[in-house]
Amino acid sequence: MTIEFRSTMDVELIDHMGSDESIARSARVSSGTSGTEEQNVGLLRMLMRDRHGSPFESVTYQFKVTCPIFVAREFFRHRIASYNEVSGRYKVLEPVFYVPEPARPLAQIGKPGAYRFEPGTPEQISLTATAHKSAAGWAWEHYEWLLKEGVAREVARNVLPLSLYTSFYVTMNLRSLLNFLSLRWAHEDSKVPTFPLKEIEAVAKDMDRLAREVCPVAFEHFDSFGRVAP
Amino acid sequence: MTIEFRSTMDVELIDHMGSDESIARSARVSSGTSGTEEQNVGLLRMLMRDRHGSPFESVTYQFKVTCPIFVAREFFRHRIASYNEVSGRYKVLEPVFYVPEPARPLAQIGKPGAYRFEPGTPEQISLTATAHKSAAGWAWEHYEWLLKEGVAREVARNVLPLSLYTSFYVTMNLRSLLNFLSLRWAHEDSKVPTFPLKEIEAVAKDMDRLAREVCPVAFEHFDSFGRVAP
Amino acid sequence: MTIEFRSTMDVELIDHMGSDESIARSARVSSGTSGTEEQNVGLLRMLMRDRHGSPFESVTYQFKVTCPIFVAREFFRHRIASYNEVSGRYKVLEPVFYVPEPARPLAQIGKPGAYRFEPGTPEQISLTATAHKSAAGWAWEHYEWLLKEGVAREVARNVLPLSLYTSFYVTMNLRSLLNFLSLRWAHEDSKVPTFPLKEIEAVAKDMDRLAREVCPVAFEHFDSFGRVAP
Amino acid sequence: MTIEFRSTMDVELIDHMGSDESIARSARVSSGTSGTEEQNVGLLRMLMRDRHGSPFESVTYQFKVTCPIFVAREFFRHRIASYNEVSGRYKVLEPVFYVPEPARPLAQIGKPGAYRFEPGTPEQISLTATAHKSAAGWAWEHYEWLLKEGVAREVARNVLPLSLYTSFYVTMNLRSLLNFLSLRWAHEDSKVPTFPLKEIEAVAKDMDRLAREVCPVAFEHFDSFGRVAP
Repeated sequence: MTIEFRSTMDVELIDHMGSDESIARSARVSSGTSGTEEQNVGLLRMLMRDRHGSPFESVTYQFKVTCPIFVAREFFRHRIASYNEVSGRYKVLEPVFYVPEPARPLAQIGKPGAYRFEPGTPEQISLTATAHKSAAGWAWEHYEWLLKEGVAREVARNVLPLSLYTSFYVTMNLRSLLNFLSLRWAHEDSKVPTFPLKEIEAVAKDMDRLAREVCPVAFEHFDSFGRVAP
Repeated sequence: MTIEFRSTMDVELIDHMGSDESIARSARVSSGTSGTEEQNVGLLRMLMRDRHGSPFESVTYQFKVTCPIFVAREFFRHRIASYNEVSGRYKVLEPVFYVPEPARPLAQIGKPGAYRFEPGTPEQISLTATAHKSAAGWAWEHYEWLLKEGVAREVARNVLPLSLYTSFYVTMNLRSLLNFLSLRWAHEDSKVPTFPLKEIEAVAKDMDRLAREVCPVAFEHFDSFGRVAP
Repeated sequence: MTIEFRSTMDVELIDHMGSDESIARSARVSSGTSGTEEQNVGLLRMLMRDRHGSPFESVTYQFKVTCPIFVAREFFRHRIASYNEVSGRYKVLEPVFYVPEPARPLAQIGKPGAYRFEPGTPEQISLTATAHKSAAGWAWEHYEWLLKEGVAREVARNVLPLSLYTSFYVTMNLRSLLNFLSLRWAHEDSKVPTFPLKEIEAVAKDMDRLAREVCPVAFEHFDSFGRVAP
Repeated sequence: MTIEFRSTMDVELIDHMGSDESIARSARVSSGTSGTEEQNVGLLRMLMRDRHGSPFESVTYQFKVTCPIFVAREFFRHRIASYNEVSGRYKVLEPVFYVPEPARPLAQIGKPGAYRFEPGTPEQISLTATAHKSAAGWAWEHYEWLLKEGVAREVARNVLPLSLYTSFYVTMNLRSLLNFLSLRWAHEDSKVPTFPLKEIEAVAKDMDRLAREVCPVAFEHFDSFGRVAP
């Protein structure tokens, strides 16, 4: 098989349940009130501001994400979510590997908790691409060799690098998603500092854009109150 | 206000996401295969039999439940779910109270872990109805009296009994729902013994009926493998 | 049985695991560093400030709480915790009921999301005590009457009011506990506004005091960063 | 640095809370009874048999696990647990890699859901070791090269294989642990079929052995009722 290198992430919105109105409806059960669309905008504003989080759990999403394993590893740390992923035990994997795009910051400056990143020098950029390709190519050859000799997929895959692409479905509610977005996107509106990996930030940006269409009012208030999850 | 007594529970399916096909799709990402509708029936059978639970989390439901507080108390013990309930702090409550229907078993025989129930005698049935009504009526008078004198709702409601009706929205995924159903309905197909409260069993039966329409194949296998949650 | 009325809550620390050092140890695995006790103080400060929450899950507590049912109802909304409670199905309940102490604010002023409370008038205070006692006494008589006639405990208990005391064990980790405390105590150091029920606030204060002894450094930083859960 | 190859897993019990007695105490709050040590054995038997799971959440453990990344990936799918892991962003990783021991079954026979494994041929065994070592060595050279040229750790680590060792702390309660053990060890007493990866099974065996000492009665009943998590 021909090895493919790529630098991008894929995020697809597969399914969703609920809307801004669902959030308002769930919240209003507590007081037994009803409201106009405009009053619901104000209600959602108050819920976000005062961090009444549970009504935001009335909206759920299923995404399909395709990204390198090192990104999936970070993603799966989010426990209030449901996952199904490509299995290296059940499937011969495909030779698709990550290589950073030239603009990916490469120089890490500072100390834990306060890193900043700067662009790589031309030499670093070139070396980074070369090393990713060389390591992936060599690993893939070993993987194919093991499979050809009848070694189980679940053993052969051990030689593959963290830059290998994987795919998974993730189902999560809006509250959990907002928590994900608050941590994984160092957005200019964020009130809480966060230092996400660039590659997971790219996933977060796509999720934000797709999820926002389902409940635009909730996201507008999320932004205006500093992107702190309710 | 006029006091209302009732014996039934209300369960409404408000919203849902996914289907039998979603379960199959989530499961198939692990092996990268696709299948016909008929093959998906077989796949769901295997998932249920061997307790591969995570694909069943691709289906989510939102219900609205109206039931007495003593039922809601048991319901809320299920933690993998999202809740919003009528609040006695934010709302003047409504005088709707539970009274058992005459057929409700009243005599508890045996010891913890192995109770069985038998119908009440005519005297017990009559007494039970009288006591529920008398206690509710007295409590409601005190509630109204406190409110009339300007005492806060959140204090006045303390005098109300567990038979008072409440309403809540609950959002849960299919896997969590199946766990709920396995514990809260002593179904004749159940392989695992359970001794649910009759009143929560009535709620479970309604949820089962409504949820089943969304993914009939999953529920068919749930029944045939002894109603053990995957 | 003689009815007992009380106004206080009981909180007992039954067991605990971990310490400030556990938090530091869990956090330090990420960087592979070690530190002095003083450096750990600084590390915990940074973890709390930047909301790195997971290391705080290394500390767990088990409490036994005795409080009225209306308080337990609010408490059990916290899902990242483990509960075992007195069961009205398995046990004849004890006639211990809540009555507010005279200082309990009784007048609720304002609208949802922005209530404030003021002390009751002497008439309101007197009426509140009388109504709690009268409703509890009447309900208890009905409960005993039903039991005496052989009606099952799980039916008889329906007539009892929300002011009845219950007891439960709760196991939760420090991160979940800090979230509980941030919502259930309107502490003067709190940066996020919250409007807890006075009675659950009393429970929260006791839990804070007991839990604080197990990891004083974590709690000190919790206070100094506005009692926002990490 | 010198590359190290190993085939074993490390599991260390760091801390724990509770005991068989804690489980009994939590369960007994529901009925308000107390019992002798012998009666508690019977109580735990009933709890396990009838799958009353919540009292088992009164016991918590913290382990430190050292294993290859492909094992950690499976482990972290268990969501009712708390994790802190070595970070390739914050730390220069150490050159310790997995190589299967010769007895590790290498030939996968059958189809998804019904695989069985057989020992490798001498050629397969030799090739497997060679491929693991060659892939790891090549990847490590690229990692060091990237670091030497000033490329950020979080980028350089992408080239490393899934066979790299990692370490993490995991805190989980006994109920969640029993679920882990039921899925990750194909124990001869297991009533439910499971097909764990050999390498995670080795971790599970160590965890079982260590955890069992803390509450031997609970584990004895777990075994005798087919190792189904309550």
